[in-house]
Amino acid sequence: MSIKKIKGGVCAPKGFLANAVSAGIKNPDVERLDLALIYSEFPCEAAGTFTTNRVKAAPVKVSQAYMKADKVQAIVANSGNANACTGIQGLSDARQTAAIVGKKLGLRQRQMAICSTGVIGLPMPMMRIEPKFGELVDGLAADKGLEVAQAIMTSDTTHKEISISVKIGDHRVRVGACAKGAGMICPSMATMLCFITTDANVSQACLQKAVQTSVEASFNRITIDGDMSTNDTVIVLANGASGAPEIKRNSVECGQFREAIQYVMKKMATSLVRDGERVTKFVTVSVKGAKTYLDARKVAEAVANSALVKSSWNGEDPNWGRIIHAVGYSRAAIREELVDIYIGGKAACLGGLQADTPMEQLRKIAAKDEFEVRIDLHLGKADYEVYTSDLSPEYIDFNRSEYAYWKQARKDGLA
Amino acid sequence: MSIKKIKGGVCAPKGFLANAVSAGIKNPDVERLDLALIYSEFPCEAAGTFTTNRVKAAPVKVSQAYMKADKVQAIVANSGNANACTGIQGLSDARQTAAIVGKKLGLRQRQMAICSTGVIGLPMPMMRIEPKFGELVDGLAADKGLEVAQAIMTSDTTHKEISISVKIGDHRVRVGACAKGAGMICPSMATMLCFITTDANVSQACLQKAVQTSVEASFNRITIDGDMSTNDTVIVLANGASGAPEIKRNSVECGQFREAIQYVMKKMATSLVRDGERVTKFVTVSVKGAKTYLDARKVAEAVANSALVKSSWNGEDPNWGRIIHAVGYSRAAIREELVDIYIGGKAACLGGLQADTPMEQLRKIAAKDEFEVRIDLHLGKADYEVYTSDLSPEYIDFNRSEYAYWKQARKDGLA
Repeated sequence: MSIKKIKGGVCAPKGFLANAVSAGIKNPDVERLDLALIYSEFPCEAAGTFTTNRVKAAPVKVSQAYMKADKVQAIVANSGNANACTGIQGLSDARQTAAIVGKKLGLRQRQMAICSTGVIGLPMPMMRIEPKFGELVDGLAADKGLEVAQAIMTSDTTHKEISISVKIGDHRVRVGACAKGAGMICPSMATMLCFITTDANVSQACLQKAVQTSVEASFNRITIDGDMSTNDTVIVLANGASGAPEIKRNSVECGQFREAIQYVMKKMATSLVRDGERVTKFVTVSVKGAKTYLDARKVAEAVANSALVKSSWNGEDPNWGRIIHAVGYSRAAIREELVDIYIGGKAACLGGLQADTPMEQLRKIAAKDEFEVRIDLHLGKADYEVYTSDLSPEYIDFNRSEYAYWKQARKDGLA
Repeated sequence: MSIKKIKGGVCAPKGFLANAVSAGIKNPDVERLDLALIYSEFPCEAAGTFTTNRVKAAPVKVSQAYMKADKVQAIVANSGNANACTGIQGLSDARQTAAIVGKKLGLRQRQMAICSTGVIGLPMPMMRIEPKFGELVDGLAADKGLEVAQAIMTSDTTHKEISISVKIGDHRVRVGACAKGAGMICPSMATMLCFITTDANVSQACLQKAVQTSVEASFNRITIDGDMSTNDTVIVLANGASGAPEIKRNSVECGQFREAIQYVMKKMATSLVRDGERVTKFVTVSVKGAKTYLDARKVAEAVANSALVKSSWNGEDPNWGRIIHAVGYSRAAIREELVDIYIGGKAACLGGLQADTPMEQLRKIAAKDEFEVRIDLHLGKADYEVYTSDLSPEYIDFNRSEYAYWKQARKDGLA
């Protein structure tokens, strides 16, 4: 596939405008972008996937309902407050946001998607957010993709965006994306938001399929701390403004479109892991030779989520003993005496026993910022791969308290 | 039940002798007890439970086979090396230990149980262990329960033992125990060893039942880091030396005996959590009102294993938002709007929303060394309780590297 990187983030595809403003959601005394808007000048096909956590934030419930009912054409997103566990008030806040911003854009309420990320359990400070809607809409422009990527950051240390131009059939289309992640990243998504825009002209059926399979191969394969958030959302808007012919379901072009979406999602997903809270290593855990797909996945996830394995990576210790112990408790079918473990391509364990590779070589690999752990079970043909990180003392330190949030809510009269 | 605490640990019951010596298993230059023996002067009924990890250490495989085949009457245990992932050599080392020590005791090889705890994947330094077997057997005495409790410690900061006298029917019998835990503690046990002795005269059927149900209510309910080891073992030896009549299956006395065993196991299990690696809090997570027992368990374990929840406890933050988010991803049936969360008996969340309890009160509770988190799902009648801890930056720091083990194994010519 002929992919070229281009500039512009979510504004790179034709017909998309964006803006972000500072509403002081987390802290009114700090000036930072925390309220964002993405808007398509043309009607869109839209598709999304949402958290499977049974505790869903209000904006997730609202956006899911709106996307079923209508054709979403704009997204309002905020950081600093997740609007989760906020009951009827939270739902009302999310709906009101859709109604007011939608009206200013000339859209129906249900053509809006609403997304939030931040602390759980505190009401939204709507008295600071609502007065900003005018500025948010008035400032829409075709060169503000970056601002949106910045406004959705929470504990992210850097913004994440990508935009590409890709040839589908005989026509070039553009795909842009931004995402936020940091803690709580786990298969089945995370406090993770990802917005993707494209000017491809794609049928609803093809778009839906492309989003589902791409999420499965990207966001559902990353894990930082084994937690899963109430707010995870991936939304893709396709406005057809490229002028290319419609991409129909099951066509060759639909396959190419899916590849493009998957490319973008994988870039975003892996960049989330790299920027995980206080993460120092990016580790690919690749399981081969499992009896079933589910077994391969169980093994990969058990290893990638083990606190002891992740601690050893933080210590640059190529500790295959802890890896095989996680393989053992994964509940997958395994035979200890068949298990091979390679670290960065070097055998650490063969047939369940320590391999001959000199420890110094393995330690050099574990000292790198990025390496692969490959586990071959030699029981079948199923594979699975996840992308993960180490677990650092600083992660825990960082996550010890969210008290600052509560103090602000108290000041706001909301707690 | 009339329980009196008495002295002596595993030697408190009549007819049990013990000893421990220093074999330099982890480090020959450091003098510390690391090889222990428990021996009954009389034949025993024995029962045990072992790790469900599919990667099982050699001594687990050997002890399981021996306990099926014969009446175990003595236990050899070592710290400093888990003898796990050590292949045929590991099995041979465990069997040889049973054969040599058994012969010195006048027992058949299969009347021995062998237990190891320590690093995974390195061969046992038998050249240092084997020469100590003579001293180990010769030094057997009725007052060395404490030495055994000390010899099985790894990253434990303190030894764990208990002994009680308990009236069963009209007769007093004694129960003694020692245990080791620290990291890798998780439901379905851990790098956890627990040895229990009793001079009760108990039928195999009653003993088996008592051990199974007591492990389920104690060791299977503790979790520190969500990992599960290759070596977990609980062994109970009952030698009948009290002279009391036989306790038969399904008798009233069998129920009393089970209560006594459960009391001892629960004391040992909770002391393991209290001494978890770099733990500062002991937290009881109690789930009420679940639709099913399995749902109650899923919720309790999801909360108790969440890295984010545990980090917040470390920070003394009564963060109910993170607790409910773990409730939501537990895969149990829940209805967000019905969930109540109490911290130390004070409402933190009612009906899925923040409760009115002043934050200062909740923070005072979370600052304690020990508190309860109660979660009521209001969906049914099933309950479940687990005992867990916070997760500290120091835990990760502590678990970053086991390189010292490897360096010693290299010196020993074993790696």
